[in-house]
Amino acid sequence: MEASAAKPVVLRVAAISGSIRKASWHRGLIRAAAEVCADSIPGLRVDDVDVAGLPMLNTDLETDGGRGFPPAVEAFRASVRDADCFLFASPEYNYSITSALKNALDWASRGVNCWADKPAAIVCAGGNFGGGRSSYQLRQVGVFLDIHFINKPELFVFAFSEPDKFFDGDGNLIHAETRERLKQVLLSLQAFTLRLQRKD
Amino acid sequence: MEASAAKPVVLRVAAISGSIRKASWHRGLIRAAAEVCADSIPGLRVDDVDVAGLPMLNTDLETDGGRGFPPAVEAFRASVRDADCFLFASPEYNYSITSALKNALDWASRGVNCWADKPAAIVCAGGNFGGGRSSYQLRQVGVFLDIHFINKPELFVFAFSEPDKFFDGDGNLIHAETRERLKQVLLSLQAFTLRLQRKD
Amino acid sequence: MEASAAKPVVLRVAAISGSIRKASWHRGLIRAAAEVCADSIPGLRVDDVDVAGLPMLNTDLETDGGRGFPPAVEAFRASVRDADCFLFASPEYNYSITSALKNALDWASRGVNCWADKPAAIVCAGGNFGGGRSSYQLRQVGVFLDIHFINKPELFVFAFSEPDKFFDGDGNLIHAETRERLKQVLLSLQAFTLRLQRKD
Amino acid sequence: MEASAAKPVVLRVAAISGSIRKASWHRGLIRAAAEVCADSIPGLRVDDVDVAGLPMLNTDLETDGGRGFPPAVEAFRASVRDADCFLFASPEYNYSITSALKNALDWASRGVNCWADKPAAIVCAGGNFGGGRSSYQLRQVGVFLDIHFINKPELFVFAFSEPDKFFDGDGNLIHAETRERLKQVLLSLQAFTLRLQRKD
Repeated sequence: MEASAAKPVVLRVAAISGSIRKASWHRGLIRAAAEVCADSIPGLRVDDVDVAGLPMLNTDLETDGGRGFPPAVEAFRASVRDADCFLFASPEYNYSITSALKNALDWASRGVNCWADKPAAIVCAGGNFGGGRSSYQLRQVGVFLDIHFINKPELFVFAFSEPDKFFDGDGNLIHAETRERLKQVLLSLQAFTLRLQRKD
Repeated sequence: MEASAAKPVVLRVAAISGSIRKASWHRGLIRAAAEVCADSIPGLRVDDVDVAGLPMLNTDLETDGGRGFPPAVEAFRASVRDADCFLFASPEYNYSITSALKNALDWASRGVNCWADKPAAIVCAGGNFGGGRSSYQLRQVGVFLDIHFINKPELFVFAFSEPDKFFDGDGNLIHAETRERLKQVLLSLQAFTLRLQRKD
Repeated sequence: MEASAAKPVVLRVAAISGSIRKASWHRGLIRAAAEVCADSIPGLRVDDVDVAGLPMLNTDLETDGGRGFPPAVEAFRASVRDADCFLFASPEYNYSITSALKNALDWASRGVNCWADKPAAIVCAGGNFGGGRSSYQLRQVGVFLDIHFINKPELFVFAFSEPDKFFDGDGNLIHAETRERLKQVLLSLQAFTLRLQRKD
Repeated sequence: MEASAAKPVVLRVAAISGSIRKASWHRGLIRAAAEVCADSIPGLRVDDVDVAGLPMLNTDLETDGGRGFPPAVEAFRASVRDADCFLFASPEYNYSITSALKNALDWASRGVNCWADKPAAIVCAGGNFGGGRSSYQLRQVGVFLDIHFINKPELFVFAFSEPDKFFDGDGNLIHAETRERLKQVLLSLQAFTLRLQRKD
């Protein structure tokens, strides 16, 4: 056995944007997170998981006694199940999370809960609280879903005051300091995931 | 002018179920509320406002610089605008409100906020907190939407333990005591609405 | 009957600071609110109600089957009972309200709830959310206490970044724009109180 | 070196009751937790940390530029610092945590945060939500304090309906099923603490 045979562990982050519009800042935060990992965080890979195609949750759509789901839901549930941890890019709509994000959270919780016992981080951009009110409502959802959120660092981008400073017109993150703070969130998520994966 | 010419004020309650499945207990609570008003609360009328047909909120669907909405959204917004107050029948999904309810709340807040400065009540049915965790997250949403929630009475139906006692298989409320408590919620909503409508 | 016989209604605002240190910004916000009312809001008077002398809530201190309280508590309860509405100056300690404020809220709720059915406003100063996380936890407390919080405007003073701009070393508010925003909060509280006092 | 020399790890749980009255159910829950650990959970020890003697938090009481505290506070902070994890027995007063608990949380966060990066569990007893509303507000406090709460199981004792069934007049837990559920909480806390203590 040579040391070189050791295969490096690559943790998979399923990243979910709570906004489904094309030029969303939150989609931009996820793209930036993927770039940051590819460029400078060995062992962490961000997969952008699109939730725009999910139907509105309605348990009448379930089949087989609650074990069968529409194809788009099955595919989404597999993405959640296969992930080691999660990154939620969560806009604040009316002081809470978006319907698109809540819908995704709920679909992957039906029957066998796909989120269970995995770590997660939240990043937000927005107005006077930087989108932050949504993060605390999301954390409460995570108690039932058994998601282990990292506590620090929190990332709230106070983007409304000077939008051009933080994002371009396509929603790309263009602010170097915020990109560095995003990297710190990802490093914290990676470290917490590694600690928690060492189960007894 | 005779006194008999005075037309009685009938307040319109727009009632919204956070569950969109057919046999939902929360749709049943709204049907019961409509019956209670018709039978025994003069001056209060419940209109069941269906939110199942709304598209998932995506601001890319807006037109005319954010003043135009898809037809189903326009119709829903008119129902909200025309109401004097609101009754939310709010299930608890994963310790928060449903995506269908959040979606409705958000659509009617876009552009000109249709909820502004109107009273509302919440009723919930569910498991160990009777669905109640959702109500406090909804109340926080109401701060930004400028909804004035009644504080008392709160109605949480602890239905999971003995579902057959409270609802039949079609989601109809069959429990007399809960119906009486629902009536007290509606009377409180009516009184609060009348107090608040006397603007300066 | 002369018009001059009409006695103007003066609403009494019981103002409570969640911080009990001497040079507190929140005490400064209350002093500023009192000045604003005296100078430019006829019909509204702010009384600074000190909560520093209250013992830590312990129901073992109650007498007479829960109807008797220590003297400092009795005096505080009378101040709450005599008020028309409330102004909470609420610092955020560890993402929630302070122990001193929670203690005051709880003491005046024991036995006959002294807060019931009265309006209130919240103002906060602090760090990245301007102290705002405390306000949403306080609003949840208000549901049980039956306090009717105004929704708008909210006042969060983002004071950590440039403390000298907003407050002097004794905690006095020295920022004219914030003083104007504080006035708008007080006017909204006054209007909401007048609407709600017209009971049936 | 014999294998027998391996000293078994005993994790220390600092247990804090949010109620400071003598016959408190929450003090009783902590006594029961200590018994359960002594009887049937090797490797876990519950230390009852009394917070009744702490002064109301007032930063004017701090000395030495915020590094010195009153003696009772210093002693409490040492208890928190020396613990491996925490058990909060949290009553719900007016839909939130008690002032006594918030006070303790805040004192041990001043200067060097004594709670940081440690796991915790919450148990509650009370009325219609079993005291549970307080637990979600406490969890939000934990985000800033960097406490890692276990998600499951949650323990809410619905004690108001049949108090004699759960506790005797001195606040002792007398309900075998609740004692077993309390044991499951402690086992989950132990397992989570062991996972998290394996730092990189």
